[in-house]
Amino acid sequence: MTITQPKPTPSIPDIAIYERRESVVRSYARSMPRQFTQAQGVWMRDDQGGRYLDFLSGCSTLNYGHNHPVLKQALLDYIAADGIAHGLDLHTDAKADFLETFEDIILKPRKLDYRAMFTGPTGTNAVEAAIKLARKVTGREGVIAFTNGFHGMTLGALACTGNASKRAGAGVPLNHVAHEPYEGYHGPDVDTAELLERRLADPSSGLDAPAAILVETVQGEGGLNAASPAWLRAIAEIARRHGALLIVDDIQAGCGRAGGFFSFEGMGVTPDIVTLAKSLSGMGLPFALALFRPELDQWLPGEHNGTFRGNNHAFVTAAAALRHFWSGGEFQADVARRGRLLERRLDAMAAEHGLSTRGRGMMRGIDVGSGEIAGAITAACFARGLIIETSGAHDEIVKVLAPLIIDDALLSAGLDILETSIREALAVPYGVAAE
Amino acid sequence: MTITQPKPTPSIPDIAIYERRESVVRSYARSMPRQFTQAQGVWMRDDQGGRYLDFLSGCSTLNYGHNHPVLKQALLDYIAADGIAHGLDLHTDAKADFLETFEDIILKPRKLDYRAMFTGPTGTNAVEAAIKLARKVTGREGVIAFTNGFHGMTLGALACTGNASKRAGAGVPLNHVAHEPYEGYHGPDVDTAELLERRLADPSSGLDAPAAILVETVQGEGGLNAASPAWLRAIAEIARRHGALLIVDDIQAGCGRAGGFFSFEGMGVTPDIVTLAKSLSGMGLPFALALFRPELDQWLPGEHNGTFRGNNHAFVTAAAALRHFWSGGEFQADVARRGRLLERRLDAMAAEHGLSTRGRGMMRGIDVGSGEIAGAITAACFARGLIIETSGAHDEIVKVLAPLIIDDALLSAGLDILETSIREALAVPYGVAAE
Amino acid sequence: MTITQPKPTPSIPDIAIYERRESVVRSYARSMPRQFTQAQGVWMRDDQGGRYLDFLSGCSTLNYGHNHPVLKQALLDYIAADGIAHGLDLHTDAKADFLETFEDIILKPRKLDYRAMFTGPTGTNAVEAAIKLARKVTGREGVIAFTNGFHGMTLGALACTGNASKRAGAGVPLNHVAHEPYEGYHGPDVDTAELLERRLADPSSGLDAPAAILVETVQGEGGLNAASPAWLRAIAEIARRHGALLIVDDIQAGCGRAGGFFSFEGMGVTPDIVTLAKSLSGMGLPFALALFRPELDQWLPGEHNGTFRGNNHAFVTAAAALRHFWSGGEFQADVARRGRLLERRLDAMAAEHGLSTRGRGMMRGIDVGSGEIAGAITAACFARGLIIETSGAHDEIVKVLAPLIIDDALLSAGLDILETSIREALAVPYGVAAE
Amino acid sequence: MTITQPKPTPSIPDIAIYERRESVVRSYARSMPRQFTQAQGVWMRDDQGGRYLDFLSGCSTLNYGHNHPVLKQALLDYIAADGIAHGLDLHTDAKADFLETFEDIILKPRKLDYRAMFTGPTGTNAVEAAIKLARKVTGREGVIAFTNGFHGMTLGALACTGNASKRAGAGVPLNHVAHEPYEGYHGPDVDTAELLERRLADPSSGLDAPAAILVETVQGEGGLNAASPAWLRAIAEIARRHGALLIVDDIQAGCGRAGGFFSFEGMGVTPDIVTLAKSLSGMGLPFALALFRPELDQWLPGEHNGTFRGNNHAFVTAAAALRHFWSGGEFQADVARRGRLLERRLDAMAAEHGLSTRGRGMMRGIDVGSGEIAGAITAACFARGLIIETSGAHDEIVKVLAPLIIDDALLSAGLDILETSIREALAVPYGVAAE
Repeated sequence: MTITQPKPTPSIPDIAIYERRESVVRSYARSMPRQFTQAQGVWMRDDQGGRYLDFLSGCSTLNYGHNHPVLKQALLDYIAADGIAHGLDLHTDAKADFLETFEDIILKPRKLDYRAMFTGPTGTNAVEAAIKLARKVTGREGVIAFTNGFHGMTLGALACTGNASKRAGAGVPLNHVAHEPYEGYHGPDVDTAELLERRLADPSSGLDAPAAILVETVQGEGGLNAASPAWLRAIAEIARRHGALLIVDDIQAGCGRAGGFFSFEGMGVTPDIVTLAKSLSGMGLPFALALFRPELDQWLPGEHNGTFRGNNHAFVTAAAALRHFWSGGEFQADVARRGRLLERRLDAMAAEHGLSTRGRGMMRGIDVGSGEIAGAITAACFARGLIIETSGAHDEIVKVLAPLIIDDALLSAGLDILETSIREALAVPYGVAAE
Repeated sequence: MTITQPKPTPSIPDIAIYERRESVVRSYARSMPRQFTQAQGVWMRDDQGGRYLDFLSGCSTLNYGHNHPVLKQALLDYIAADGIAHGLDLHTDAKADFLETFEDIILKPRKLDYRAMFTGPTGTNAVEAAIKLARKVTGREGVIAFTNGFHGMTLGALACTGNASKRAGAGVPLNHVAHEPYEGYHGPDVDTAELLERRLADPSSGLDAPAAILVETVQGEGGLNAASPAWLRAIAEIARRHGALLIVDDIQAGCGRAGGFFSFEGMGVTPDIVTLAKSLSGMGLPFALALFRPELDQWLPGEHNGTFRGNNHAFVTAAAALRHFWSGGEFQADVARRGRLLERRLDAMAAEHGLSTRGRGMMRGIDVGSGEIAGAITAACFARGLIIETSGAHDEIVKVLAPLIIDDALLSAGLDILETSIREALAVPYGVAAE
Repeated sequence: MTITQPKPTPSIPDIAIYERRESVVRSYARSMPRQFTQAQGVWMRDDQGGRYLDFLSGCSTLNYGHNHPVLKQALLDYIAADGIAHGLDLHTDAKADFLETFEDIILKPRKLDYRAMFTGPTGTNAVEAAIKLARKVTGREGVIAFTNGFHGMTLGALACTGNASKRAGAGVPLNHVAHEPYEGYHGPDVDTAELLERRLADPSSGLDAPAAILVETVQGEGGLNAASPAWLRAIAEIARRHGALLIVDDIQAGCGRAGGFFSFEGMGVTPDIVTLAKSLSGMGLPFALALFRPELDQWLPGEHNGTFRGNNHAFVTAAAALRHFWSGGEFQADVARRGRLLERRLDAMAAEHGLSTRGRGMMRGIDVGSGEIAGAITAACFARGLIIETSGAHDEIVKVLAPLIIDDALLSAGLDILETSIREALAVPYGVAAE
Repeated sequence: MTITQPKPTPSIPDIAIYERRESVVRSYARSMPRQFTQAQGVWMRDDQGGRYLDFLSGCSTLNYGHNHPVLKQALLDYIAADGIAHGLDLHTDAKADFLETFEDIILKPRKLDYRAMFTGPTGTNAVEAAIKLARKVTGREGVIAFTNGFHGMTLGALACTGNASKRAGAGVPLNHVAHEPYEGYHGPDVDTAELLERRLADPSSGLDAPAAILVETVQGEGGLNAASPAWLRAIAEIARRHGALLIVDDIQAGCGRAGGFFSFEGMGVTPDIVTLAKSLSGMGLPFALALFRPELDQWLPGEHNGTFRGNNHAFVTAAAALRHFWSGGEFQADVARRGRLLERRLDAMAAEHGLSTRGRGMMRGIDVGSGEIAGAITAACFARGLIIETSGAHDEIVKVLAPLIIDDALLSAGLDILETSIREALAVPYGVAAE
């Protein structure tokens, strides 16, 4: 099976309104200059009738695809019945249902005992809440984050983010955070957990004992670097030994993307705090959570608040998603199988061109050597009807973030497009392939 | 007309799930221990059949009431048609429609030339983006905010917030922001704009020239202090003279709450940057904007980004709200009339008890002298079916944030409850009134 | 009596070596382009035989004049006998003698119970130690300093300094310090202590409770603003009420300059911490102290250290100075009389030209309206053999810091020169007077 | 030859005055509880007639011994002739003489073109000035310092210092500085310069491009770690490549301690900025310098100032020291020979006990494994009349900082005491040896 782009859309939409009224800060819209109007499952459609297979999934926000019928119907019913849309942090039946479902389907089977904090409904807000809590509980100020880590754009989270151009946007120095090398950063022979332990154990290293160590198990924006269980356990042990909390930022890797509901499942690590967002609502609605051990729940009422922390529409779709996808083991088995398929195909492409792959589960990519080549590849894919993006310090990783619900044939079809586009880009000098 | 609470709900909901699984950071749920299930217009309903008149409006997030039928229908239609729910910052027909509607109905008639930045969909994120941009454009780091100002909970915005207990939650020092006295802070005889000008003009004052002056025209959380046009103009002139940008945080006072769509209309002030959130989506959905003069739009693509910056459901309801309420002058005239009604009633209550009132438009309150008394009053109101909350440094202001669409009779009825509850609270020692 | 400049020195020294090898950061050498070779009492001599009456006194470092014979002899004897020059913080007889003399002559008669910390021998180091200790003891981070305050150039002290051009030299933001208006800053009608109390008492002012309030009783660099006892007591009370330590920076105003050994004597205020430097050694040798109540002495051994904290030469001259000048009341009475003489003369000059005076004791100046005029006056004085400098935010204060040991006739003679130079500068357009 | 302690001093001095009036922050006085009264050359004497061979040399402040007769006489003559003691930054003949001598004897023969900035006369102040200048010139804020680095106690320098207990004294977070591993920190197989380059070259590492890299060529307080020329050149190249200034803090290793006048001589590295203090005055008087390339001399007049920046007594002794010791090559050859003697002796002691040595030139030590053992050794030495101290993160290095002018026989005699004391400490359980 191949994807046929039923109606190529050579003309870009009338973008005058965007040029007139939207800030130049917009980014994705530049490489995908279409006006999108509808989306269902793995497909997006534009206003010219173009159809696109979505291997970006809102950067892992749409793990269950667009407008999944079960979630959509739950939301339509809720709105039609005048369910609470906005309730600050008031108790609502939607919130209670979400909490109970989360407890039953997610926490209990995994023997996890977490409290949920409804932070403002953005990932960056969940990260801010997590590090605030860690600082409050430990009485320390520093946070250790990692090279290539990405944690958000508000000032506290941005300080934890590695990307220099994002950081420069702060306009003030980003303090209280040290970035340490992630696993493999200095090559296979250097154990970066050991480097970190050495400095934290040394009272004269200049690296003060931190409030928290903040880590992604797979670095989504930073290049799909996947940490090994051994390294994660070493980091968890370092945190424990030095009185720091372990925060796993599971915003991109969680909700099934890396395999389990939490990306750290099966790794022998239980974080003190976990942040979730992106696919949590299941339908792309703004929703974020910070989870933490009950002993850490030392907030004063309202000490961290926010207008939209009770986005009830998201509670509804999130609870529906948990019930639909995570009640049994079938979905997770499907994801695992698709992840292996993805791995095989990417490994083959890499082998063909002497490249390397990255990632875990359904969160994988291929390092094509430079941002220019990667950009040429994704542009060629887009011209063939495949939405796909790059990642990494130099945007040199073509990353596949297909919806987890994609059927295997469509996944293969999309990867065919990627394979062709890579061949094209690597066969010819840069600049030609993208035309 | 009086409101009759059809079925008093003496029993609180089963809160075990909240105690087990929700963080103790929750706040409103403590003083309003009900489980809410439905809401329409000015009314909220709980799961025991209780009905509540909503004079809180999601802290001004629900200016058009709950689930307004026009907005609700627009959203239902959009979802049913598989409209894009989540689109990162891709162009969508929903976004284009919002931008065009905002331009036509809001900007053009007011002769305002702003670009819109879709920040993460929370007010705090819009504030973060605003001060980042001001720092970037000016190359300066400091921001001047005001006593009692409230701007959000993420680290950059929190530094601008005055409230000590919120600030303490940061766990790190909150730098780069100086808090200057708001109008009237030092009594009627001290012109606080003059105090500020004196220090900024003095090269030895220790107050470095700031990137921005960040101000609310009416301080929502800080006690409903309303700035005069003269003071705001003085502040704007100070900003201009010292090369700082003027940022009006219109998150709570905007969208009609203080009278006009922007709270600064008719005051002779044009901010360089404006932040909007809360009632922007019209239906309580997460949505926030930073608006700024095109010359200031110096972002690099993606320099400030975020997963949910394209909350298309909110674009749909926001555009519908603009069309429905702001196309003509009728709504604004209604709000003005209700604001005067509110003013008269509050003034009368204040006069009866020797108290004072605060605020502007439909954003008014009464200073009852202490948080204890105010708490007793709001508890008494709640027992009578009226949801109402407090504000101010000591929670000493009972604030009325009724939906702007409330009809005059219901507004009066709600104020009757408030009047009775105040009498009760002030007639008897604290503690009795609340029973 | 008039001073006759025995041999005018029209030629400036060979400054090639300075241009080649000294940083352009040098300042005083620019307005006094002579090569100085000798100094005794109130006089300095240059290498051309020029003689200058010193009304600058090393910015109050030479209160007892240059090379006072008693101190000089004590130092010569000590060096000749191979006394310890440098001893880290080891016990030496010179240190013991200093401590005992300080206890007997300074502390006991004033009923003050302070411990002495030998910080690095610069004023800025004493200020750094003082604020470190205040932060350590209180567990708070903020410091309140005042407009026009000057406390030093290292990062911690610089943050407390008001001067914008000094601050800009930091190259990083200067945090953890708020500058509040000094007494009289907003005119006679605004009680700035009240402004401060209002904000510290307000939990929503954004001004967090500080570790310390750091104040000069007379602002040396900031324009010779002299605080009243009432205001100082109010500030002390504010510090006490809000759990902050009161630090009096007595580096310039102490050691007799403002009248008593400590500038706060007789004002009803006992600081928690006092910093001393400048005239402490008596002969201009580097020496600084932080004094604090014994209960605050919570340092760990070596927690604040420094190579030169045991400048024993300075201990020797400092002890000799205490014995010679402060054993009885004669010196202080002389200083008081000279201070009144200085006050009368400056008041008369001010009255003649409609100007105002500032200061207290032997630390007084005249506000001539602009830095240009003040510069013309000091240049004219210098041409007549009088070394005198300016102060204030705009260098608009001509300040008289004559040695305290000056005899009344020479003081008058120097003031005659000042009087003439002021007349000259104010009689003719700027630029002519200075020739 | 052996040192005979002519009169053991079992009784400690009357320390009541210190307990009453000196802060508990004192440190060296605790392990050497004597009252010292005189010092000449390599000897210190106490008030009980005890005599001590000084292998501490004021932590390398007394490289030429105590009260060297040439320097002493120059100072006595200067004071007797009423030379300027304190002259702010005015031109004096003493300063001119120092600058000319420094140019002729130090700079010209080494083909170095530096300007001298007379910072406040403490090492920490020179470091503060150096990093301020680097920040000003580059417009960047970050500084990279190294593990185990020690640079001073004022806030800016303290942020560059690695020691955790010193850092904790700040009471505020120490920002804008990242501590990277010094050469050998992660063992012989990890090239820490490569680790640093990797992160600075990576736009997503979270390590922002710094204003400066601040390094000691031998870490005095940090354990006598000596960098290799190759590593230093790599660091210099990294600084150059990334637009950062290279600052060598030569406060402890300079002035002959590591061999040459500058510790970096012969290493193929020319720093952009150099800091000097400690032995610069030659006689232990407070004096510090920042040296920098003329193009970097971008200060405004007075932008960094300080009362004691013109310590003319120190200029006199410093110039005398330069002339006496550095005019020809004899002194440096003597130091080299003594350094080799020291190296051989320490290597032998280390070999005997299976320990390792550290350092370079006359700045060497032996790692005895723990601070407890090292303390026992230094205590045993002290009981035998040898003043010697420890260094390193755990005070585990016994460091020899003998005066450079020591004759070889006395150096050997002192090392005999050390050898005996080490044997004693390692032969018996800890606690016995020290008696």
